[in-house]
Amino acid sequence: MSSSFGTNLRVTISGGSHEPHIGVTIAGLPAGIPIDLDRISQFLARRAPGNSIFATPRKEPDIPEIISGLESGRTTNQPLIAIIRNTNIRSQDYGALRDVPRPGHADYTAAVKYGGSVNMAGGGPFSARLTAPLCIAGAIAIQLLGGCGIHLGAHIYSVGGIQDRPFDPVRVSPADFALAQNRAFPVLDEAQGEAMGEVIRAAMTDGDSVGGVVECCALGLPAGLGGPMYDGIEGRLSQIFFGIPAVKGVEFGNGFQCAALFGSQNNDAFCMEGQTVRTVTNNHGGILGGISSGMPLICRLAFKPTPSIYREQSSVSLSRGTTERLQVAGRHDPCVVVRAVPIVEAALGIGLLDLFLGEKALQQNIVNLAN
Amino acid sequence: MSSSFGTNLRVTISGGSHEPHIGVTIAGLPAGIPIDLDRISQFLARRAPGNSIFATPRKEPDIPEIISGLESGRTTNQPLIAIIRNTNIRSQDYGALRDVPRPGHADYTAAVKYGGSVNMAGGGPFSARLTAPLCIAGAIAIQLLGGCGIHLGAHIYSVGGIQDRPFDPVRVSPADFALAQNRAFPVLDEAQGEAMGEVIRAAMTDGDSVGGVVECCALGLPAGLGGPMYDGIEGRLSQIFFGIPAVKGVEFGNGFQCAALFGSQNNDAFCMEGQTVRTVTNNHGGILGGISSGMPLICRLAFKPTPSIYREQSSVSLSRGTTERLQVAGRHDPCVVVRAVPIVEAALGIGLLDLFLGEKALQQNIVNLAN
Amino acid sequence: MSSSFGTNLRVTISGGSHEPHIGVTIAGLPAGIPIDLDRISQFLARRAPGNSIFATPRKEPDIPEIISGLESGRTTNQPLIAIIRNTNIRSQDYGALRDVPRPGHADYTAAVKYGGSVNMAGGGPFSARLTAPLCIAGAIAIQLLGGCGIHLGAHIYSVGGIQDRPFDPVRVSPADFALAQNRAFPVLDEAQGEAMGEVIRAAMTDGDSVGGVVECCALGLPAGLGGPMYDGIEGRLSQIFFGIPAVKGVEFGNGFQCAALFGSQNNDAFCMEGQTVRTVTNNHGGILGGISSGMPLICRLAFKPTPSIYREQSSVSLSRGTTERLQVAGRHDPCVVVRAVPIVEAALGIGLLDLFLGEKALQQNIVNLAN
Amino acid sequence: MSSSFGTNLRVTISGGSHEPHIGVTIAGLPAGIPIDLDRISQFLARRAPGNSIFATPRKEPDIPEIISGLESGRTTNQPLIAIIRNTNIRSQDYGALRDVPRPGHADYTAAVKYGGSVNMAGGGPFSARLTAPLCIAGAIAIQLLGGCGIHLGAHIYSVGGIQDRPFDPVRVSPADFALAQNRAFPVLDEAQGEAMGEVIRAAMTDGDSVGGVVECCALGLPAGLGGPMYDGIEGRLSQIFFGIPAVKGVEFGNGFQCAALFGSQNNDAFCMEGQTVRTVTNNHGGILGGISSGMPLICRLAFKPTPSIYREQSSVSLSRGTTERLQVAGRHDPCVVVRAVPIVEAALGIGLLDLFLGEKALQQNIVNLAN
Repeated sequence: MSSSFGTNLRVTISGGSHEPHIGVTIAGLPAGIPIDLDRISQFLARRAPGNSIFATPRKEPDIPEIISGLESGRTTNQPLIAIIRNTNIRSQDYGALRDVPRPGHADYTAAVKYGGSVNMAGGGPFSARLTAPLCIAGAIAIQLLGGCGIHLGAHIYSVGGIQDRPFDPVRVSPADFALAQNRAFPVLDEAQGEAMGEVIRAAMTDGDSVGGVVECCALGLPAGLGGPMYDGIEGRLSQIFFGIPAVKGVEFGNGFQCAALFGSQNNDAFCMEGQTVRTVTNNHGGILGGISSGMPLICRLAFKPTPSIYREQSSVSLSRGTTERLQVAGRHDPCVVVRAVPIVEAALGIGLLDLFLGEKALQQNIVNLAN
Repeated sequence: MSSSFGTNLRVTISGGSHEPHIGVTIAGLPAGIPIDLDRISQFLARRAPGNSIFATPRKEPDIPEIISGLESGRTTNQPLIAIIRNTNIRSQDYGALRDVPRPGHADYTAAVKYGGSVNMAGGGPFSARLTAPLCIAGAIAIQLLGGCGIHLGAHIYSVGGIQDRPFDPVRVSPADFALAQNRAFPVLDEAQGEAMGEVIRAAMTDGDSVGGVVECCALGLPAGLGGPMYDGIEGRLSQIFFGIPAVKGVEFGNGFQCAALFGSQNNDAFCMEGQTVRTVTNNHGGILGGISSGMPLICRLAFKPTPSIYREQSSVSLSRGTTERLQVAGRHDPCVVVRAVPIVEAALGIGLLDLFLGEKALQQNIVNLAN
Repeated sequence: MSSSFGTNLRVTISGGSHEPHIGVTIAGLPAGIPIDLDRISQFLARRAPGNSIFATPRKEPDIPEIISGLESGRTTNQPLIAIIRNTNIRSQDYGALRDVPRPGHADYTAAVKYGGSVNMAGGGPFSARLTAPLCIAGAIAIQLLGGCGIHLGAHIYSVGGIQDRPFDPVRVSPADFALAQNRAFPVLDEAQGEAMGEVIRAAMTDGDSVGGVVECCALGLPAGLGGPMYDGIEGRLSQIFFGIPAVKGVEFGNGFQCAALFGSQNNDAFCMEGQTVRTVTNNHGGILGGISSGMPLICRLAFKPTPSIYREQSSVSLSRGTTERLQVAGRHDPCVVVRAVPIVEAALGIGLLDLFLGEKALQQNIVNLAN
Repeated sequence: MSSSFGTNLRVTISGGSHEPHIGVTIAGLPAGIPIDLDRISQFLARRAPGNSIFATPRKEPDIPEIISGLESGRTTNQPLIAIIRNTNIRSQDYGALRDVPRPGHADYTAAVKYGGSVNMAGGGPFSARLTAPLCIAGAIAIQLLGGCGIHLGAHIYSVGGIQDRPFDPVRVSPADFALAQNRAFPVLDEAQGEAMGEVIRAAMTDGDSVGGVVECCALGLPAGLGGPMYDGIEGRLSQIFFGIPAVKGVEFGNGFQCAALFGSQNNDAFCMEGQTVRTVTNNHGGILGGISSGMPLICRLAFKPTPSIYREQSSVSLSRGTTERLQVAGRHDPCVVVRAVPIVEAALGIGLLDLFLGEKALQQNIVNLAN
């Protein structure tokens, strides 16, 4: 079922921009955990379109409402349902797109798969709007993980080839996360952020869009999370990461870069830090053999440029089989990575909590949280 | 369960180098499908260590034996079990590694997760030897897919930064697959292969290893396979890809490269080819919105350099907490990507067949195969 | 996850009597199917407490509201969420039950499993109130099945040993279902219903309760649904049946009775009815080898007497370890089977739709429904 | 996938009487657990046909062989595969049954579901022979549970209406299990066993068969195993129970009998036994609200009479649509419950171990076993 993620936690995304609500049903949360609604709203605000001059100016005041699974501010032992009311339901906007599919979009593949009876591509499971309920689930997961000493963050790693300063894979700290989160344009190095802004502005002026990379990190993960083969952290996280619209690549540690290295360069020597085993470098990104090493978990996600661009493009009419020129109306994010930063954090949080809840040895941390 | 992959097909890998057999149990195969054992053996031979001067010279004559699920050369409607007898069981080789973990290996994380009672890292689910039964399952999946007109191939895309000619994402054909498969060093451009060989030889001489990238491709996939969100082809394939030892990154289409492009560069215009909708370029790698577009499916996997190197490295004694110098004995593959090419094909084949079997609309193809 | 049922359809029950809503999230419904809200309300009304003089007089006006997954009266391709607002939230009523567990109830086992931090037994997943959202999901499933020519019904088979006329396993028809559904006390034979009423009234007068059996039936199932071993219809339906509170036994066809028969008595001879293969008798209850035979599917569920009775009972104080006398306050259903009839229909409908959606060969029926 | 059972443990049955082996793949077993092969063989011997004068005289010397997942007598952390070689492969015996289906058998439903291309009913997943690998998995599960202080047993509860003395639901002990297990005809009351034997002998003489009920019990289960709704013990065990061929009903505690009782009769009063909470009676069969209470777990399974009988029966020709008289050749068990006793124990053991492995709180017991 396309709309559900997770094994121990089960997150089901619902609704669409054509429906009265979008929402999320979360089964498998431990009972008795305090949930701070304000922190969920603050998290959602980071994803909100009005947050950035670069983002689409559509007004979507996303107010989360938990209608089930919460009693006196704590989780019950029943599934949690949170919804966001759609204030501005657009059932007609996307009508004209059906016959002439937008290049780079799911219009064509959705038409092949689901046929003409349902207008899928605009309003259904392909809608980027559904990353809002994902962020609610993510904000809740992040609160639980935080209570267990696990903290995570993300930043814009690159836009159109301009790179931010990366997280230091060994010394990265929650202060780095705060640095990015407190900026409207979430980078570590403001000068590089300015340069990226130039690229985005130029794309906007040209009726174009631009791609980018988001880097994310989790701190405080105990060593021993995950497992070999199909229990590996990489495989399980990549499943939720590739569920984010526009993601085309996922790498862990130094990722594709390690393919150009020698073993003597890439291997991370072990060392002792007090009683704790650590590594001197962290090319492995905190994961060895699919299992967490206790070092910072580092991964990066490549986002393609927003396919909806104002510039005229070539397409075909599915009904007539003719070549057509297409210009996508409306305004769209010229660069999704700006708003993608909290979405990646949300996905990382959900993926890690799902893993965490499957670890029998770590259950005590959760029990402590509930007391 | 770490050793099992798939939803519609269920592939469970078993055994290890310390056990009498390694094997694979495949549940969910359709009944009545002819299986060619010789083609399985030929496929396995491509992965065999003796195949390349660069690979570890250990003798492992991998003879697959199907002990269940086959009758008169056709699948029954029961699970298929195939095994390979281990002719050379080594239960002591890895003993000394327990206390001083090898940098870059799962020795440390496996010790944290599973404790000292079981010698995991050498012989259990972390063993690269288990890619042999994966290849049996892959060879079977590839035969089924081939019967439905779906063909796939892979080649070494890069080693230590030296790049092969990539698959042409629009015009790639089965002849390209054959070109790579017929070479002991599976590249498209022999001159580049020579240059890669130099890098590998140099690494060997230095007691070192080197990383690389494998590119793979599937042709003939009907449009409409997969689905949005967590049914997406990328997410489902990445789960089996990251289950291959040493994989640290996975990308589809132009992957991380698209992050540096503008939408007007990255979007693939639609066009008609006779009655068929195609795209002029194929930056999307055959997947839009998680669903196949009918264009060639293209993906790349980054492999880290083999962690086991002869050069002395720094590590710690887990029991004494002291810093130790470590030299890994025995001989190991200086570059895993040479043997990884058929393994990636196998994983791609299994992942695609798992998707394919879940598509109600495509069942007739399977039924035809059985008749 | 205790609150979720199904493989192809995924039904997750949420909320409780202490929360503002109870609800159900249904993932996996096909898109474009018309849903009649009035028929859902009518179905729910059959389960409502005020419906019967024998049932608990608590006022619960259950008004279902679909907040997601429906557009212009048809299912979208996203999960459907339906909720019922709790008008009368009782957070204190069950407090005193915590330390002295009610005999026959989950008070004690829930306390052992979940500890004292959450008041589970009264308001959480053990609450019979959660059969209301199950009935919403069931009403939807029944509408879909009805559109595919599959009809189902149930009746009170026995109360306190008094038996109704059973469904004729060969000639049972939708008229029999209507007969029971149109009666406040859903039996086939009114005289027997009167006698059962006497038993229930006597139990009420005595501050006691009484058990019973519900029989249910599905007509129009095509032969070939289900599968051998763990795909068997019996095993899959029994999982949802035993999820109904108070069910202690499930049997198919002539069930426990067949254990006293000879094969020559129990075997159902095959015969032709026009072009259709049928059986002369139907001791097998429409299932052979886990697969539907095309004959009416018949099963029966045994319900224990309501554990909450007014008569004084013996229990213990969990905190003091002393023997205690306990009298359960409030009024409770003296016989759950009266209201259980639509709940069993709902469970049967969900279970069958889950099976049906997994059958590739039957997908066309669903597609037709959406057009 | 029909051939697989379990969530935490994954048991996949393979092979058939037409294939060279039957077998079982068990994924999810904890590592380091000692397995006694002799005890597996002894367990299998109790199911063997030659064990009873009433059973089919076919010679099947079932010698289990563990080919994967065992090292020095202990489980590794990889899946365990056990096989039994078929010494007597019969590929032609069942041919004639294809066109004229045997009444009471899966011949007809299998033909509808799988078509004519595969001879399913005789040799595939419908074969009772596959209860042998189930017994291997069960014997292993029973050994693990035994090491955690959980013991189980079963006996013939009734044959053709003649009843054995039931297990005392409060005072049942391992001695009762041993009593039944040590008898060729596994009953508690030998006189009743004699009477059952008479019924079976009479059926044999008449070329007929007879049904029966098996009662099983587990002792030593900690309170708190299972969960509400779809995590309930009843629902999860019934899934594996209904996977046993010929089972048509499953009941827990006093089951269908409780439907005829008053609450005041059926409720089990709590009492203290030292520091332990117990119940004075055990009508609930050790399960309240889907969760174990710590009292003996009691359940009963109804088996229909063997459908294969020598007496002439009425059937149809599927190809010609004509009425036919059918006489089933060969010899068959006149009463499956005799051999079903260890099979029910095996299913109970697997079902309970699957539950047990999902209980985070009970993991320490498993860890202790491995040391």
